[in-house]
Amino acid sequence: MKKEKGLLIVLSGPAGVGKGTVCSALRQENTDIQYSVSATTRAPREGEVDGVNYFFKSRDEFEEMLKNDALLEWAEYVGNYYGTPIDYVKKTIDEGNDIILEIEVQGALKVKERLPEGVFIFLMPPSLAELRKRIEGRGTETADVINKRMTVAKEEIDMMKKYDYVVENDEVQAAVNRIKAIVTAEHCKRERLIEKYKQLVEVE
Amino acid sequence: MKKEKGLLIVLSGPAGVGKGTVCSALRQENTDIQYSVSATTRAPREGEVDGVNYFFKSRDEFEEMLKNDALLEWAEYVGNYYGTPIDYVKKTIDEGNDIILEIEVQGALKVKERLPEGVFIFLMPPSLAELRKRIEGRGTETADVINKRMTVAKEEIDMMKKYDYVVENDEVQAAVNRIKAIVTAEHCKRERLIEKYKQLVEVE
Repeated sequence: MKKEKGLLIVLSGPAGVGKGTVCSALRQENTDIQYSVSATTRAPREGEVDGVNYFFKSRDEFEEMLKNDALLEWAEYVGNYYGTPIDYVKKTIDEGNDIILEIEVQGALKVKERLPEGVFIFLMPPSLAELRKRIEGRGTETADVINKRMTVAKEEIDMMKKYDYVVENDEVQAAVNRIKAIVTAEHCKRERLIEKYKQLVEVE
Repeated sequence: MKKEKGLLIVLSGPAGVGKGTVCSALRQENTDIQYSVSATTRAPREGEVDGVNYFFKSRDEFEEMLKNDALLEWAEYVGNYYGTPIDYVKKTIDEGNDIILEIEVQGALKVKERLPEGVFIFLMPPSLAELRKRIEGRGTETADVINKRMTVAKEEIDMMKKYDYVVENDEVQAAVNRIKAIVTAEHCKRERLIEKYKQLVEVE
Protein backbone atom coordinates (compact mmCIF):
# COMPACT_ATOMS: atom_id res chain seq x y z
CA MET A 1 0.00 0.00 0.00
CA LYS A 2 1.17 3.49 -0.80
CA LYS A 3 2.25 5.47 2.23
CA GLU A 4 0.11 8.50 3.03
CA LYS A 5 1.62 11.61 1.49
CA GLY A 6 2.86 14.44 3.67
CA LEU A 7 1.26 17.87 3.63
CA LEU A 8 2.58 20.93 1.86
CA ILE A 9 1.80 23.80 4.19
CA VAL A 10 2.12 27.26 2.70
CA LEU A 11 2.30 30.02 5.27
CA SER A 12 1.79 33.40 3.70
CA GLY A 13 0.34 36.81 4.29
CA PRO A 14 0.97 40.51 3.72
CA ALA A 15 4.41 42.04 4.28
CA GLY A 16 5.14 42.72 7.91
CA VAL A 17 2.53 40.33 9.28
CA GLY A 18 5.17 38.28 11.11
CA LYS A 19 5.49 35.17 8.91
CA GLY A 20 9.18 34.75 9.78
CA THR A 21 8.61 35.14 13.51
CA VAL A 22 5.74 32.67 13.56
CA CYS A 23 7.69 30.20 11.43
CA SER A 24 10.74 30.41 13.72
CA ALA A 25 8.58 29.89 16.80
CA LEU A 26 6.98 26.86 15.17
CA ARG A 27 10.42 25.54 14.30
CA GLN A 28 11.56 25.83 17.90
CA GLU A 29 8.79 23.48 18.99
CA ASN A 30 10.49 20.61 17.17
CA THR A 31 7.40 19.29 15.47
CA ASP A 32 7.81 16.71 12.70
CA ILE A 33 7.31 19.42 10.10
CA GLN A 34 10.16 19.93 7.64
CA TYR A 35 11.15 23.31 6.28
CA SER A 36 11.54 24.12 2.64
CA VAL A 37 15.08 25.06 1.59
CA SER A 38 15.38 27.83 -0.98
CA ALA A 39 17.88 28.00 -3.82
CA THR A 40 19.89 31.21 -4.17
CA THR A 41 22.72 32.69 -6.21
CA ARG A 42 24.01 34.77 -3.35
CA ALA A 43 27.29 33.65 -1.73
CA PRO A 44 27.07 31.56 1.44
CA ARG A 45 27.69 33.50 4.65
CA GLU A 46 29.92 32.12 7.36
CA GLY A 47 28.41 29.04 8.92
CA GLU A 48 25.75 28.57 6.23
CA VAL A 49 25.57 25.02 4.94
CA ASP A 50 24.56 24.05 1.40
CA GLY A 51 21.30 22.08 1.49
CA VAL A 52 20.49 23.25 5.02
CA ASN A 53 20.28 27.05 4.93
CA TYR A 54 20.09 27.30 1.15
CA PHE A 55 20.92 25.38 -1.97
CA PHE A 56 23.75 27.58 -3.23
CA LYS A 57 23.75 27.86 -7.02
CA SER A 58 25.69 29.71 -9.65
CA ARG A 59 23.75 32.11 -11.87
CA ASP A 60 23.99 29.62 -14.71
CA GLU A 61 22.69 26.78 -12.56
CA PHE A 62 19.78 28.91 -11.35
CA GLU A 63 18.87 29.97 -14.88
CA GLU A 64 19.01 26.33 -15.93
CA MET A 65 16.50 25.56 -13.14
CA LEU A 66 14.28 28.36 -14.43
CA LYS A 67 14.48 26.94 -17.93
CA ASN A 68 13.55 23.48 -16.65
CA ASP A 69 10.60 24.79 -14.65
CA ALA A 70 12.27 23.35 -11.57
CA LEU A 71 11.20 26.17 -9.26
CA LEU A 72 7.80 26.50 -7.64
CA GLU A 73 8.30 30.25 -7.52
CA TRP A 74 11.24 32.62 -7.73
CA ALA A 75 12.23 36.28 -7.47
CA GLU A 76 15.26 38.47 -8.03
CA TYR A 77 16.30 40.56 -5.06
CA VAL A 78 19.32 42.92 -4.86
CA GLY A 79 20.93 41.27 -7.86
CA ASN A 80 20.51 37.71 -6.65
CA TYR A 81 18.00 35.00 -7.48
CA TYR A 82 15.96 33.27 -4.81
CA GLY A 83 13.54 30.40 -5.47
CA THR A 84 11.87 27.27 -4.18
CA PRO A 85 13.05 24.04 -5.84
CA ILE A 86 10.01 21.88 -6.54
CA ASP A 87 12.03 18.65 -6.27
CA TYR A 88 12.83 19.12 -2.60
CA VAL A 89 9.21 19.88 -1.73
CA LYS A 90 7.84 16.95 -3.72
CA LYS A 91 10.42 14.52 -2.36
CA THR A 92 9.56 15.48 1.23
CA ILE A 93 5.83 15.04 0.65
CA ASP A 94 6.27 11.75 -1.20
CA GLU A 95 8.28 10.41 1.70
CA GLY A 96 5.24 11.08 3.91
CA ASN A 97 6.65 14.13 5.69
CA ASP A 98 4.98 17.50 6.05
CA ILE A 99 6.83 20.53 4.75
CA ILE A 100 6.20 24.19 5.40
CA LEU A 101 6.89 26.98 2.97
CA GLU A 102 7.03 30.53 4.30
CA ILE A 103 6.45 32.87 1.44
CA GLU A 104 4.94 36.19 0.36
CA VAL A 105 1.48 36.33 -1.22
CA GLN A 106 2.46 36.46 -4.90
CA GLY A 107 4.78 33.48 -4.48
CA ALA A 108 2.12 31.54 -2.59
CA LEU A 109 -0.37 31.97 -5.41
CA LYS A 110 2.22 30.66 -7.89
CA VAL A 111 2.75 27.63 -5.64
CA LYS A 112 -1.00 27.09 -5.61
CA GLU A 113 -1.07 26.88 -9.42
CA ARG A 114 1.51 24.08 -9.35
CA LEU A 115 0.47 22.29 -6.16
CA PRO A 116 -3.18 23.06 -5.44
CA GLU A 117 -3.35 20.18 -2.94
CA GLY A 118 -1.29 22.28 -0.53
CA VAL A 119 -2.73 23.69 2.68
CA PHE A 120 -2.73 27.45 2.24
CA ILE A 121 -2.68 29.48 5.44
CA PHE A 122 -3.12 33.23 5.34
CA LEU A 123 -1.52 34.88 8.34
CA MET A 124 -3.74 37.81 9.13
CA PRO A 125 -2.22 41.04 10.39
CA PRO A 126 -3.46 42.19 13.77
CA SER A 127 -4.43 45.46 12.08
CA LEU A 128 -7.42 43.76 10.51
CA ALA A 129 -8.43 42.43 13.90
CA GLU A 130 -7.87 45.94 15.17
CA LEU A 131 -10.07 47.27 12.41
CA ARG A 132 -12.81 44.90 13.43
CA LYS A 133 -12.53 46.03 17.03
CA ARG A 134 -12.69 49.66 16.04
CA ILE A 135 -15.68 49.23 13.82
CA GLU A 136 -17.37 47.17 16.47
CA GLY A 137 -16.58 49.80 19.07
CA ARG A 138 -17.68 53.41 18.97
CA GLY A 139 -16.87 55.29 15.75
CA THR A 140 -14.44 58.06 16.62
CA GLU A 141 -12.22 57.95 13.51
CA THR A 142 -12.48 60.41 10.61
CA ALA A 143 -14.09 59.24 7.40
CA ASP A 144 -10.67 59.39 5.68
CA VAL A 145 -9.02 57.04 8.14
CA ILE A 146 -11.94 54.65 7.98
CA ASN A 147 -11.93 54.72 4.16
CA LYS A 148 -8.23 53.95 4.04
CA ARG A 149 -8.67 51.05 6.42
CA MET A 150 -11.53 49.77 4.34
CA THR A 151 -9.40 49.80 1.17
CA VAL A 152 -6.69 47.82 2.91
CA ALA A 153 -9.25 45.39 4.35
CA LYS A 154 -10.80 44.85 0.92
CA GLU A 155 -7.41 44.10 -0.62
CA GLU A 156 -6.66 41.66 2.15
CA ILE A 157 -9.99 39.93 1.75
CA ASP A 158 -9.24 39.56 -1.95
CA MET A 159 -5.99 37.80 -1.09
CA MET A 160 -7.58 35.67 1.60
CA LYS A 161 -10.05 34.22 -0.89
CA LYS A 162 -7.43 31.92 -2.37
CA TYR A 163 -6.42 30.44 0.96
CA ASP A 164 -7.84 27.54 2.96
CA TYR A 165 -7.31 29.00 6.40
CA VAL A 166 -6.94 32.41 7.97
CA VAL A 167 -4.85 32.60 11.14
CA GLU A 168 -4.87 35.78 13.15
CA ASN A 169 -1.39 36.71 14.34
CA ASP A 170 -2.61 38.44 17.46
CA GLU A 171 0.02 36.66 19.55
CA VAL A 172 2.86 34.50 18.18
CA GLN A 173 2.23 31.45 20.39
CA ALA A 174 -1.51 31.57 19.67
CA ALA A 175 -0.79 31.69 15.93
CA VAL A 176 1.66 28.78 16.25
CA ASN A 177 -0.94 26.71 18.13
CA ARG A 178 -3.53 27.39 15.45
CA ILE A 179 -1.13 26.32 12.70
CA LYS A 180 -0.31 23.11 14.58
CA ALA A 181 -4.04 22.43 15.02
CA ILE A 182 -4.60 22.97 11.29
CA VAL A 183 -1.85 20.46 10.46
CA THR A 184 -3.38 17.88 12.84
CA ALA A 185 -6.88 18.48 11.47
CA GLU A 186 -5.69 18.22 7.86
CA HIS A 187 -4.25 14.81 8.64
CA CYS A 188 -7.74 13.80 9.82
CA LYS A 189 -9.48 15.03 6.65
CA ARG A 190 -11.70 12.28 5.38
CA GLU A 191 -10.67 12.72 1.75
CA ARG A 192 -7.04 12.13 2.64
CA LEU A 193 -7.79 9.07 4.77
CA ILE A 194 -10.50 7.46 2.70
CA GLU A 195 -8.19 7.05 -0.28
CA LYS A 196 -5.81 5.18 1.94
CA TYR A 197 -8.51 2.81 3.13
CA LYS A 198 -9.98 2.36 -0.30
CA GLN A 199 -6.59 1.23 -1.54
CA LEU A 200 -6.37 -1.09 1.41
CA VAL A 201 -9.69 -2.74 0.65
CA GLU A 202 -9.13 -2.88 -3.09
CA VAL A 203 -5.90 -4.79 -2.56
CA GLU A 204 -8.04 -7.89 -2.11
CA MET B 1 -21.93 43.11 12.70
CA LYS B 2 -23.31 39.64 13.21
CA LYS B 3 -21.35 37.59 15.69
CA GLU B 4 -19.57 34.57 14.24
CA LYS B 5 -21.71 31.49 14.63
CA GLY B 6 -20.58 28.59 16.77
CA LEU B 7 -19.78 25.20 15.30
CA LEU B 8 -22.02 22.17 15.39
CA ILE B 9 -19.66 19.26 15.92
CA VAL B 10 -21.14 15.83 15.30
CA LEU B 11 -19.11 13.00 16.78
CA SER B 12 -20.21 9.67 15.44
CA GLY B 13 -19.00 6.25 14.45
CA PRO B 14 -19.86 2.57 14.59
CA ALA B 15 -21.26 1.00 17.77
CA GLY B 16 -18.58 0.20 20.31
CA VAL B 17 -16.00 2.59 18.89
CA GLY B 18 -15.84 4.57 22.14
CA LYS B 19 -17.83 7.73 21.31
CA GLY B 20 -19.05 8.10 24.90
CA THR B 21 -15.60 7.62 26.42
CA VAL B 22 -13.99 10.12 24.07
CA CYS B 23 -16.81 12.61 24.64
CA SER B 24 -16.51 12.32 28.43
CA ALA B 25 -12.75 12.78 28.26
CA LEU B 26 -13.22 15.87 26.12
CA ARG B 27 -15.78 17.18 28.58
CA GLN B 28 -13.35 16.79 31.46
CA GLU B 29 -10.93 19.14 29.76
CA ASN B 30 -13.33 22.03 30.28
CA THR B 31 -13.08 23.42 26.81
CA ASP B 32 -15.62 26.05 25.75
CA ILE B 33 -17.58 23.41 23.85
CA GLN B 34 -21.20 22.94 24.93
CA TYR B 35 -22.93 19.57 24.94
CA SER B 36 -26.23 18.82 23.31
CA VAL B 37 -29.04 17.88 25.72
CA SER B 38 -31.40 15.14 24.52
CA ALA B 39 -35.13 15.01 25.09
CA THR B 40 -36.56 11.78 26.52
CA THR B 41 -39.82 10.32 27.77
CA ARG B 42 -38.14 8.16 30.35
CA ALA B 43 -38.54 9.19 34.00
CA PRO B 44 -35.73 11.21 35.58
CA ARG B 45 -33.36 9.19 37.76
CA GLU B 46 -32.25 10.47 41.13
CA GLY B 47 -30.09 13.54 40.77
CA GLU B 48 -30.93 14.11 37.11
CA VAL B 49 -31.85 17.70 36.33
CA ASP B 50 -34.27 18.76 33.61
CA GLY B 51 -32.43 20.78 30.95
CA VAL B 52 -29.05 19.53 32.15
CA ASN B 53 -29.05 15.75 31.84
CA TYR B 54 -32.14 15.59 29.64
CA PHE B 55 -35.19 17.55 28.71
CA PHE B 56 -37.82 15.35 30.35
CA LYS B 57 -40.99 15.16 28.31
CA SER B 58 -44.30 13.34 28.49
CA ARG B 59 -45.16 11.02 25.64
CA ASP B 60 -47.65 13.57 24.35
CA GLU B 61 -45.12 16.37 24.48
CA PHE B 62 -42.55 14.26 22.64
CA GLU B 63 -45.05 13.28 19.95
CA GLU B 64 -45.95 16.95 19.58
CA MET B 65 -42.25 17.67 18.99
CA LEU B 66 -42.15 14.95 16.35
CA LYS B 67 -45.19 16.43 14.66
CA ASN B 68 -43.59 19.89 14.66
CA ASP B 69 -40.34 18.57 13.21
CA ALA B 70 -38.61 19.92 16.32
CA LEU B 71 -36.11 17.05 16.59
CA LEU B 72 -32.93 16.74 14.59
CA GLU B 73 -33.16 12.97 14.99
CA TRP B 74 -34.93 10.57 17.29
CA ALA B 75 -35.30 6.90 18.18
CA GLU B 76 -37.44 4.68 20.37
CA TYR B 77 -35.52 2.50 22.79
CA VAL B 78 -37.01 0.08 25.39
CA GLY B 79 -40.39 1.79 25.18
CA ASN B 80 -39.08 5.33 25.54
CA TYR B 81 -38.38 8.09 23.06
CA TYR B 82 -35.01 9.80 22.82
CA GLY B 83 -34.25 12.70 20.50
CA THR B 84 -32.20 15.83 19.85
CA PRO B 85 -34.19 19.08 20.03
CA ILE B 86 -33.12 21.30 17.15
CA ASP B 87 -33.93 24.50 19.08
CA TYR B 88 -31.28 23.94 21.71
CA VAL B 89 -28.62 23.20 19.11
CA LYS B 90 -29.52 26.22 16.94
CA LYS B 91 -29.72 28.59 19.92
CA THR B 92 -26.24 27.53 21.10
CA ILE B 93 -24.72 28.03 17.64
CA ASP B 94 -26.47 31.35 17.10
CA GLU B 95 -25.09 32.60 20.39
CA GLY B 96 -21.60 31.92 18.98
CA ASN B 97 -20.90 28.81 21.05
CA ASP B 98 -19.72 25.46 19.75
CA ILE B 99 -21.85 22.45 20.55
CA ILE B 100 -21.01 18.77 20.28
CA LEU B 101 -23.47 16.03 19.47
CA GLU B 102 -22.45 12.46 20.24
CA ILE B 103 -24.61 10.20 18.15
CA GLU B 104 -24.74 6.92 16.23
CA VAL B 105 -24.25 6.85 12.47
CA GLN B 106 -27.89 6.79 11.34
CA GLY B 107 -28.73 9.75 13.58
CA ALA B 108 -25.68 11.67 12.40
CA LEU B 109 -26.73 11.32 8.77
CA LYS B 110 -30.19 12.67 9.66
CA VAL B 111 -28.53 15.63 11.37
CA LYS B 112 -26.50 16.22 8.22
CA GLU B 113 -29.68 16.53 6.14
CA ARG B 114 -30.96 19.29 8.40
CA LEU B 115 -27.70 21.02 9.29
CA PRO B 116 -25.13 20.29 6.56
CA GLU B 117 -22.90 23.11 7.84
CA GLY B 118 -22.00 20.91 10.82
CA VAL B 119 -18.52 19.45 11.28
CA PHE B 120 -18.95 15.71 10.96
CA ILE B 121 -16.29 13.61 12.67
CA PHE B 122 -16.19 9.86 12.17
CA LEU B 123 -14.54 8.13 15.09
CA MET B 124 -12.74 5.20 13.56
CA PRO B 125 -12.55 1.93 15.45
CA PRO B 126 -9.06 0.69 16.21
CA SER B 127 -10.05 -2.52 14.42
CA LEU B 128 -9.73 -0.77 11.07
CA ALA B 129 -6.32 0.49 12.08
CA GLU B 130 -5.59 -3.06 13.16
CA LEU B 131 -6.78 -4.30 9.80
CA ARG B 132 -4.41 -1.94 8.09
CA LYS B 133 -1.54 -3.16 10.21
CA ARG B 134 -2.36 -6.77 9.46
CA ILE B 135 -2.64 -6.24 5.75
CA GLU B 136 0.55 -4.26 5.76
CA GLY B 137 2.26 -6.97 7.78
CA ARG B 138 2.70 -10.58 6.73
CA GLY B 139 -0.47 -12.38 5.63
CA THR B 140 -1.10 -15.21 8.08
CA GLU B 141 -4.93 -15.03 8.32
CA THR B 142 -7.25 -17.40 6.50
CA ALA B 143 -9.07 -16.13 3.43
CA ASP B 144 -12.35 -16.27 5.38
CA VAL B 145 -11.14 -14.02 8.16
CA ILE B 146 -9.68 -11.60 5.66
CA ASN B 147 -12.89 -11.54 3.63
CA LYS B 148 -14.97 -10.81 6.72
CA ARG B 149 -12.68 -7.97 7.68
CA MET B 150 -12.86 -6.60 4.19
CA THR B 151 -16.67 -6.56 4.28
CA VAL B 152 -16.62 -4.64 7.56
CA ALA B 153 -14.00 -2.25 6.22
CA LYS B 154 -16.04 -1.58 3.09
CA GLU B 155 -19.15 -0.82 5.13
CA GLU B 156 -17.16 1.53 7.31
CA ILE B 157 -15.68 3.32 4.32
CA ASP B 158 -19.20 3.77 2.97
CA MET B 159 -20.19 5.48 6.21
CA MET B 160 -17.02 7.55 6.35
CA LYS B 161 -17.79 9.09 2.96
CA LYS B 162 -20.38 11.40 4.43
CA TYR B 163 -18.08 12.80 7.09
CA ASP B 164 -15.60 15.66 7.03
CA TYR B 165 -13.00 14.11 9.29
CA VAL B 166 -11.92 10.66 10.37
CA VAL B 167 -10.36 10.37 13.82
CA GLU B 168 -8.70 7.15 14.80
CA ASN B 169 -9.58 6.15 18.36
CA ASP B 170 -6.32 4.35 18.97
CA GLU B 171 -5.93 6.04 22.34
CA VAL B 172 -8.57 8.21 24.07
CA GLN B 173 -6.32 11.20 24.77
CA ALA B 174 -4.92 11.16 21.24
CA ALA B 175 -8.48 11.12 19.84
CA VAL B 176 -9.48 14.00 22.15
CA ASN B 177 -6.47 16.04 21.01
CA ARG B 178 -7.35 15.46 17.37
CA ILE B 179 -10.94 16.57 17.95
CA LYS B 180 -9.76 19.72 19.72
CA ALA B 181 -7.39 20.45 16.82
CA ILE B 182 -10.24 19.99 14.34
CA VAL B 183 -12.37 22.49 16.27
CA THR B 184 -9.52 25.03 16.32
CA ALA B 185 -8.82 24.51 12.61
CA GLU B 186 -12.50 24.83 11.69
CA HIS B 187 -12.55 28.21 13.40
CA CYS B 188 -9.67 29.24 11.12
CA LYS B 189 -11.43 28.10 7.92
CA ARG B 190 -11.29 30.90 5.44
CA GLU B 191 -14.92 30.52 4.37
CA ARG B 192 -16.09 31.06 7.94
CA LEU B 193 -13.86 34.07 8.51
CA ILE B 194 -14.15 35.76 5.16
CA GLU B 195 -17.90 36.17 5.55
CA LYS B 196 -17.27 37.96 8.82
CA TYR B 197 -14.81 40.36 7.22
CA LYS B 198 -16.94 40.91 4.17
CA GLN B 199 -19.77 42.00 6.41
CA LEU B 200 -17.36 44.25 8.23
CA VAL B 201 -16.25 45.97 5.05
CA GLU B 202 -19.73 46.17 3.58
CA VAL B 203 -20.94 47.98 6.67
CA GLU B 204 -19.42 51.11 5.16
